[in-house]
Amino acid sequence: MTTALTARQLIDQHRPTLDQALETLRTRAYWSPFPEHPKAYGENGSLGPAEGQTAFDALRDARFELDQPGTRGWTGGETSPYGFPLGIEYPTPDVDVLLPAMREAMPAWRDAGPEARAAVCLEILTRINARTHEFAQAVMHTSGQAYMMAMQAGGPHAQDRGLEAVAYAYAEQTRTPAAAVTWSKPQGKRDPLELTKEFTAVPRGVALVIGCNTFPTWNGYPGVFASLATGNAVLVKPHPRAVLPLALTVRVARETLAEAGFDPNLVALAAERDGEGIAKTLAVRPEVRIVDYTGSTAFGDWLEANARQAQVFTEKAGVNTILFHSTDDYRGMLANVAFSLSLYSGQMCTTPQNLLIPRHGIETDAGPRTYEEVVADLAGAVDKLLGDDARATALLGAIVNPGVAERLDGAASLGEVALASRTVEHPDFPDATVRTPVIVKLDGAKPEAEAAYLSECFGPVSFAVAVDSTDDAVALLRRTIREQGAMTIGAYTTDAATERLVEDACLEECAQLSLNLTGGVYVNQTAAFSDFHGSGGNPAANATLCDAAFVAPRFRMVEVRRQA
Amino acid sequence: MTTALTARQLIDQHRPTLDQALETLRTRAYWSPFPEHPKAYGENGSLGPAEGQTAFDALRDARFELDQPGTRGWTGGETSPYGFPLGIEYPTPDVDVLLPAMREAMPAWRDAGPEARAAVCLEILTRINARTHEFAQAVMHTSGQAYMMAMQAGGPHAQDRGLEAVAYAYAEQTRTPAAAVTWSKPQGKRDPLELTKEFTAVPRGVALVIGCNTFPTWNGYPGVFASLATGNAVLVKPHPRAVLPLALTVRVARETLAEAGFDPNLVALAAERDGEGIAKTLAVRPEVRIVDYTGSTAFGDWLEANARQAQVFTEKAGVNTILFHSTDDYRGMLANVAFSLSLYSGQMCTTPQNLLIPRHGIETDAGPRTYEEVVADLAGAVDKLLGDDARATALLGAIVNPGVAERLDGAASLGEVALASRTVEHPDFPDATVRTPVIVKLDGAKPEAEAAYLSECFGPVSFAVAVDSTDDAVALLRRTIREQGAMTIGAYTTDAATERLVEDACLEECAQLSLNLTGGVYVNQTAAFSDFHGSGGNPAANATLCDAAFVAPRFRMVEVRRQA
Repeated sequence: MTTALTARQLIDQHRPTLDQALETLRTRAYWSPFPEHPKAYGENGSLGPAEGQTAFDALRDARFELDQPGTRGWTGGETSPYGFPLGIEYPTPDVDVLLPAMREAMPAWRDAGPEARAAVCLEILTRINARTHEFAQAVMHTSGQAYMMAMQAGGPHAQDRGLEAVAYAYAEQTRTPAAAVTWSKPQGKRDPLELTKEFTAVPRGVALVIGCNTFPTWNGYPGVFASLATGNAVLVKPHPRAVLPLALTVRVARETLAEAGFDPNLVALAAERDGEGIAKTLAVRPEVRIVDYTGSTAFGDWLEANARQAQVFTEKAGVNTILFHSTDDYRGMLANVAFSLSLYSGQMCTTPQNLLIPRHGIETDAGPRTYEEVVADLAGAVDKLLGDDARATALLGAIVNPGVAERLDGAASLGEVALASRTVEHPDFPDATVRTPVIVKLDGAKPEAEAAYLSECFGPVSFAVAVDSTDDAVALLRRTIREQGAMTIGAYTTDAATERLVEDACLEECAQLSLNLTGGVYVNQTAAFSDFHGSGGNPAANATLCDAAFVAPRFRMVEVRRQA
Repeated sequence: MTTALTARQLIDQHRPTLDQALETLRTRAYWSPFPEHPKAYGENGSLGPAEGQTAFDALRDARFELDQPGTRGWTGGETSPYGFPLGIEYPTPDVDVLLPAMREAMPAWRDAGPEARAAVCLEILTRINARTHEFAQAVMHTSGQAYMMAMQAGGPHAQDRGLEAVAYAYAEQTRTPAAAVTWSKPQGKRDPLELTKEFTAVPRGVALVIGCNTFPTWNGYPGVFASLATGNAVLVKPHPRAVLPLALTVRVARETLAEAGFDPNLVALAAERDGEGIAKTLAVRPEVRIVDYTGSTAFGDWLEANARQAQVFTEKAGVNTILFHSTDDYRGMLANVAFSLSLYSGQMCTTPQNLLIPRHGIETDAGPRTYEEVVADLAGAVDKLLGDDARATALLGAIVNPGVAERLDGAASLGEVALASRTVEHPDFPDATVRTPVIVKLDGAKPEAEAAYLSECFGPVSFAVAVDSTDDAVALLRRTIREQGAMTIGAYTTDAATERLVEDACLEECAQLSLNLTGGVYVNQTAAFSDFHGSGGNPAANATLCDAAFVAPRFRMVEVRRQA
């Protein structure tokens, strides 16, 4: 016997959180309702670390039942980057059955209204949050993230991004009044013209979310929750190597929707075997009116060109840059950049790749440092950070797939190696592929080096690019953003004029800038409710997480007006 | 000696109007700062009707100087639908000179911020408003609208839509704080992580507005002002038959911008001779990042497919329907529909085309009426409305171009003519082409009739389609919206169940619905700040006028964060 939830109860329960989210989006201050400390979980119905492990183990070597309509078979094949197969099989849908069922679920969801939808979405996120340690295992063993990162970025930080999307969606849908409005236009001495008007936020159709391998929840949740909160049904097509975190998400969403009296088919899973490529078929189905995608530029461009019946939101490849000019905290700068290069083996879309360092060196609080010294000191900082294997694996995680390892191996041939990559033994997972970052020196004045630094080399590879002057560095920065796109830009300078040059470049080329980070915040991290992830204005992404442009096109306002 | 305006003065002057616009968008009540009565103009610096005529006459048979960079020649060729050439020549741009000049104008405009941009936009609109009677002449003698309509729809109503876009743009840009924000994340016993963050709304690039022949200002202003208010430069490419209203707009905008201390090249004109087709070249220029278009489905689809470097907003063709079921005000219904069919000779994207009437007739307060009787009564109502030639021309205006006249002539062959079109002599303009609407009877059960009623027949042509039942009518309504798109749907019914059926169809197919209009509001009219024009969710348009989705993608937020 299930305890049915009413929309009213859910609204009462979650309205304060929604209101705080809305307020924080206005102030951009720090806030999160989802604790990031591992020890915050394990009581009040949430799973502790050991329970998360147990739950994950129970999922392995079994079928993952979802009770979706139109299941035509089972598929799987995920292998943990830590060196073992997950052995889980997921339903593969007959989309000719599943998609109509999803469409049928939508009118009642639409009629529930924005507030009830937001409350149900928050209930889903709250239930996901209670299972953060289970999701952490799932994220760790699909993405290769180290446990702490999988738990935080794959757990509360992803949940934050989902909640942020819900809040934006709610705000946009409620800008126009829901209750009937009387419109009265004076007509001089005659009676006024009078109409009553009702406005309903209506969904676009089925929303397809195409997940990625490295951040299945963090990159997936904004699209999932923005579309669901705006009344659409959501079909989740995970990366074939990272199905479990999103399959768990779909399961929790379906359970919650059903308990709240809605059709669970509002959220469904479309799993596939690696290489099957069903996203290409799904994305152009007429029922699909929204696509969210994170992945390669090639397929992102294909979606933008071909899924013309849909609103397409893409995050693609980019080349991130840090520009070095001067610093008043040389040690802090080195430590900060070393951490950014090492975190999750540089397998973040936000990891810096090109380090633009003046050939003549930089001014620092420790005196002037030549190009060679800066590169050597940076290599030393990475070495120091990753000197201890246990600490190194906790920071690096595992290499997510063979492609990354190949690029890493190939990087040494691109130029002089300033810091060689080394293999680290994982204390708990002997079959994990763990590698430290490589830093390669390139001369920015030599055209033959361009091919390397003007394309994305995803993974733990960075280029120390020698530049002739600040002007050259800014010109290269602009060109890189304009041609390759960028999710993040960093710069170190104590000079106001240089700072202005870099700021102007970022404002004009539309890229997010972090200046003089020397402490515990890193250029590759963004915080929901405050930071924008990507700008949507350069080739790395056509959307940012999260703003009104990310949610507003997911619904339309239909007006019914009547003679009063 | 020019009197320079400061941003501060303009903000002080226009802030109350902006605030009232923002408030009205929330309440959707009736409001407009721009009077629609012709006699409201002529004092306090505004032009009266005669002054508007004089100003228009002074523009004729002359070059229209704009002092734009990169003028490579002069072009023209507009002919009034009232039967005379305007004789005006406009500059044709060398876009390789003009577009870079427009880009150069943008950083200072961006740095001015959303409030100053809104204030300058309101100043432009206010100056345009003062010249409403001059614009009325320009709109009348390019679109063929009758004077009163040209004055109202081309004047204050268009200005309202521009202001509405400015208000939405301001609201979206100021959702994120402009001033520096301190972000402080607690770290237990350690010092909190602290950053300062600044957010800047940055433009996308040059915005291209491709104008239409029938409503150059009303359909043009939302895109012009949404893009300008969000920091973009705006290149206006009018329809070659309706250049003057937008050329005047560009001139006022350039003058105002210059007086306010901004680069006038933020707004520029790209005129062309009919048939030249420069929009195709302009729309794919890399500098162009936004396109607003009103016109044919064929070119709208081409833009969506090819102007991939830009955000494309289109309003295309559609087939509007009125569904007849029953009414408690038969005379009111007939009068209302007759007016809608006649206004501006049906040359509105919102004019009803398909009149779905049950074969077995409808229930009315005047007793049951058969299909034949309803059609005959409707024809009679149109005849009565247009019986007097002077009154007829004041309502019909002139036929905008030969294509409309050809379709009107061809309509008689599509079925039995229930109301024949007749030619009306214009008392003031003997060479004007003035024609009354035709109503053609079609049988909805006969497949050979589909080709007629399932495609747009733009102009004063409507089809009285006999349907077997309410269910059939609703099914045809759904199909028409889904396949052809629709800007407006009307329905007459006193039955709650039928009303619910039509409402559900409109909510699911995403079309704007007017129910039981029998008074002085017509299905083809929408009021800014309250009604949405189109939905953006069916094939007639990919955007609505106006919502957040119309403004939010026109800018991006760039964040600069610094170690605190």
